[in-house]
This record gives sequence, structure tokens and C-alpha cells, in this order.
Amino acid sequence: MTDFEYMALAYQQAAKGQGLTWTNPCVGAILVKQGHLLAMGYHHSFGQPHAEVDALQHLADPKAAKGATMYVTLEPCSHFGKTPPCAKKLVAVGIKRVVIGQQDPNPLVSGKGIAILKAAGIQVTVLQYPDQLNTTYHFFYRHQRPLITLKYAMSLDGKINGAPNQRTILTGQAAYQDSQQLRAAHQAILIGENTLTVDNPALTVRHVKTAHPPIRIILVRQADTLSHDLQLFQTKIPIWLLASQPSRQDWPDHVSVFQDDHWTPQAIMAFLYRQGVQSLLVEGGSQIQAAFTAANLNDCLVVYLAPLMLGGGGLPAVFGTSQTQHTPFQITTRQLDSDIRIDARRNF
Amino acid sequence: MTDFEYMALAYQQAAKGQGLTWTNPCVGAILVKQGHLLAMGYHHSFGQPHAEVDALQHLADPKAAKGATMYVTLEPCSHFGKTPPCAKKLVAVGIKRVVIGQQDPNPLVSGKGIAILKAAGIQVTVLQYPDQLNTTYHFFYRHQRPLITLKYAMSLDGKINGAPNQRTILTGQAAYQDSQQLRAAHQAILIGENTLTVDNPALTVRHVKTAHPPIRIILVRQADTLSHDLQLFQTKIPIWLLASQPSRQDWPDHVSVFQDDHWTPQAIMAFLYRQGVQSLLVEGGSQIQAAFTAANLNDCLVVYLAPLMLGGGGLPAVFGTSQTQHTPFQITTRQLDSDIRIDARRNF
Repeated sequence: MTDFEYMALAYQQAAKGQGLTWTNPCVGAILVKQGHLLAMGYHHSFGQPHAEVDALQHLADPKAAKGATMYVTLEPCSHFGKTPPCAKKLVAVGIKRVVIGQQDPNPLVSGKGIAILKAAGIQVTVLQYPDQLNTTYHFFYRHQRPLITLKYAMSLDGKINGAPNQRTILTGQAAYQDSQQLRAAHQAILIGENTLTVDNPALTVRHVKTAHPPIRIILVRQADTLSHDLQLFQTKIPIWLLASQPSRQDWPDHVSVFQDDHWTPQAIMAFLYRQGVQSLLVEGGSQIQAAFTAANLNDCLVVYLAPLMLGGGGLPAVFGTSQTQHTPFQITTRQLDSDIRIDARRNF
Repeated sequence: MTDFEYMALAYQQAAKGQGLTWTNPCVGAILVKQGHLLAMGYHHSFGQPHAEVDALQHLADPKAAKGATMYVTLEPCSHFGKTPPCAKKLVAVGIKRVVIGQQDPNPLVSGKGIAILKAAGIQVTVLQYPDQLNTTYHFFYRHQRPLITLKYAMSLDGKINGAPNQRTILTGQAAYQDSQQLRAAHQAILIGENTLTVDNPALTVRHVKTAHPPIRIILVRQADTLSHDLQLFQTKIPIWLLASQPSRQDWPDHVSVFQDDHWTPQAIMAFLYRQGVQSLLVEGGSQIQAAFTAANLNDCLVVYLAPLMLGGGGLPAVFGTSQTQHTPFQITTRQLDSDIRIDARRNF
């Protein structure tokens, strides 16, 4: 078997941790000696052993690691986090060669794990294997902000409702189910105060199991004016209120208020990077979609297209701030009962 | 063979006249006696013999018609138009039985052709065979107005340009070619004065052969103020100017001015019905799309979706007049290079 074939096996291991490892990436590892597969492992969840250690723990004879080759999808870590550094562990057990899928983009690790291995005389190969499992993790460190997806449902004439400040349900059950999976795949959801008061959403994930429900972020003027009867406050999943005025209120543990004079999309990005949020789903309303579009902070779009017209008096899905850059997206479509899901993404 | 199988053959004949018969429908006919196919025929083009006569003319022995069964896709005509009535001809040649695909919806004929046949003792069967060839013909007489298709290209956020009164080319070459075929399939195209002056379109059909290029209809305030340098006036294909003020100008033969104080979508429909226009393609601008949408005069939509965002300051594809009815459409999509064509139609 080639290095790439062994690495494909290691990725199969990594995939077992999907949706469970945040804020860590999914990582898989296998141990091979003289053409024999000795052990496999993966990172099960945040705080649990890393993939390399998990693989070593599956060895029938711990001494067998000596002289073996380890295939690991991501560069072994070099720092003490929740667990000791893996690179040093690999040196200690006598691994002869390490084949790495991708260098770790996290600046705490990047290149440092490889340096530890090389300094100990271990032979290191980096494959640049395409990592489909950790797109947001890689994006987050490369661009120093979350991967942003704008999501909206609109009519065939690009409207979200028949008249402003009116809640209009446009799409059917299949699109609804799909949108719950979309939420489950994100680390945070953002909406504006107007959407909060007009739609009164819970912003929770329904009908989909998720170990890490997304943080619910609301852009508000003054947090203290929000009604505690809102659906949002009826579940204990974290809420971050990004407010332009300070709060004088005592909030429950799961609610945090962050104050800034001007929460521009750029300011929100800087904040979310500091907080380690790797993916953000912007659910509206139309002025917030326009602000992110104008700032070119729209890496992906998910548009649910409903088979009706709302007419010339309806509110456009993206409305307000103007924009000059018109970078094209790659698009694909998928039918969801009588609705259509459009996926658009930039090259990033 | 069953009646339906013979009728399918007759429809294959009818299809040969597609795009050539306007304002007549496409019609096919076959003659059968004792299980033998004696002759086939179809309506070649407006002014040429009808399908029944064409079939009779293909008989090796004209007397063979006596005692035969004629399968004809549309009820034989009962009136003198460009040619004498076919129903009387069928009686004269001694046809024994006539099987009809669909009754003719044209009030000049409807039921009268059948009555002539029956009065002469001919056995008549009407199959109610679904007629895919003459959708607009049937629609036109049933609803007493043209079948209306609204067509626009828009961005992923439902906009037609980045700012009002700015021409923005959104879609690529494949969508352009496709839109030429769409034009060729219509009997008239409608745009507003603002689109005429901002886009300066020729409204001709390019790269597609068509026997009947669509009539170019423009909604204008005062026809005499239009510049004769506009692309529109550089070709001799008919132009109808629907003006709200009278014209004092002498126009060339291919340009007609029709004056009415208030050309509402409903008034335009009544006018086009009187003129015998069976299909209309509304190409914009956004206020005209909104007016037709508000009037519920949007039987079909063709939306070319371009893979970019124009942002919150862009002009919506449908903008202006409000609307309350939100009847759903059936939709399908098709990729055209990097654009997407969305077809939406009501049940009619």
C-alpha cells in the first residue's frame, strides 16, 4: 500500500469524530510496521486523547511502536493543551517515520510539531492530503476569522416577506429539516434585533442530534430592553448579546453581553476569532445580510428558493447597505420537495 | 393499433409544423382503412392547406377516402378562413369515421366542425388527447388572453443591477443563447420605456432561425419623444408602441402606435387578445414585472440566476406595486454554464 492509501485509512478513522471534537479538529492515525497494520485511532472528543495517543493505546504490545511508521491526518501537536504534546510522545515510544496529511494551521502548533520530530531524527513526510473534514478549522486559522455562511429563504423574486415587519413562512417541511442540519453544522448563528422581535425564533437545533448546539448571537442596541418572554430565552444554550450600549442587568450564566460602540461585520469577525468560533451562520434579517455582503464577508450562501412571487412591495432578502465587489460564486442546486436549495461558495 | 396509437402518429405529423403555423395551431392527420395507413398530412404553414386536406392530397387514389377513418389532432374547421372548411370536405369525400384529438377552443370552430360531421352521419370520437404542441393556442382561447411569461436575470440576492439606471450584464453565454430561444418561442416581447432607454435593446432573435420573429411591444408615455437612433428602430420587425399620449409623427409601416390613457396589464391583455397574440414574454424592467405580478398575470416565469451578489443597494428584479396573492408555482432548474435557469409555471 502507498502512503496515500494508508492516509485514506487514517482519514476514515478521523471521520468518526465528526461533530464531536470542537474546538479541536477531527484527526485520525494508524500505525504500520513492515507492511502490517498494528493499530488505529482517532480523536473522539474535546478533552479526550489525541488520535496518535488513541492509536498507541490500541497496540496489543506497547513496545511494538518502536521502529513503526505513524500515519496521522494532522501534524502532531507540540504544546500542552488538555493533553501533553503528541510529538514528544511519538519520540518517546521510538516511532521511526511519521507521515502527515496536513500541517496544522493553528499557530500554536504549525511547524513546531514537525520540528520536534525532525530534531529527534524521525523521518517526516507531509502529503498535503486534501482535508474535507476540517474545512472550517483550516479556514479559521488561515483567514483568522470564522467561515461565514449567509442563509435566507426567498421567493422567486428575491423577497423574504410580503411587507416589512411581517413574518412570512415561505418554504416547506423538507427545507425546514434541511435548515436544522445546516444549523447543527455551525458553531454559531447570528441574527439582528429586528428579526428577533418580528420572528421570535428559538435559534435551537430541532430534529437533529448535536453534541455542540450553535451559540446564539444577537446584535442588539440595548440588551436590557429585550423581553425575557422571547423564545430565545426559553432554552439554556449559550446566548451572546452583542450590544452597542452597556447592560445594567444580571444575566443567567448562559447569557453573555459584549458591548462595543459599533459592531460592524469586521468587528464581529475579530471578536469571534478571539473567541475561537470557527463557523458562523448568518440568518438575517435583510439589513444584516446586506452589511455582510457589502463587507465581502459572505464565503458561502445557502438560499432556500420558494416557488412563489411576493411582488414589488415585498422586502428583499438583502437590503440596505450598498456593495461594489461582485465576485462570482460556484453554485449548485438541489430540490427539496417544492423548494430549491441553492448552495453558493467562493473559492477559498 | 388502438385509436390512441393512431392519434400519436397524427401528432408526430403535427409536430412537423412547429414554429411555422402561427396564428394557426399545429395539426396532423392520418387516413386509415381496414387497418391500413392510407395517407398522412399536416398543416405546413399559415395559408397552406389544413392537415386533413394535406392528408387527402397524399392519397394514391383519391377515391380511397370513401369509407376511411380520419385521425386528426384538432377538430376539423367549420368556417371559411384562408382555406374552405375541412369538415365539409371530409363529408364530401365520404369519410366514415373521424377521431379527433382535441376539440378546437377557437369559438369560430369549437363544436361546429363536429356538428357538421355528425349531421352528415359521420361517426365522431373525441379522445381528449393531451396536446403539448399547441399549449399557447389552447390557453389563448380558454383564457381569452395570451399566455404570459415573465423573464428576468437576477443575482443570488434577487437584484437586476448594482444601482438603478445602470445596465449590468449578469449571466453568461449559455444563458444568452437560451434567452434567444425563449424569445423565438414567443409571439410578442414586452418591455417598458425605462428599459428601452437604459438597456437600448434591439429585441430581435439572434442565433436562432425563426419564421415569425416576435412583435416588439414597448410601453411608452409619448412615442414621439423616442430617439430614432435606438437599436429597436434599426430592424424592420414589427414594433407596437403602447402610448398613453397620442403621436403626431409619421411612422414607418412596421411601427404602430396604439394610444390608451392607462395601459394596465389587464388593458394590454384585452388588446393582445383582440390582436390574436397568443404568447407574451415580459422582459422588464422591474416595475413592469411588479405590475404583472400584482395583477396575477404571471403564468410562467423564466429566471436566470447569476452566481453573484449585488448587495443591499441593488434594484430588485420585481419592484414597485404590491401584491397580495401568493399562488405557488411548479418549479424546475437547469444549469447553464455557471448560471441557473429556473422555470416556474402555474397550473393552467
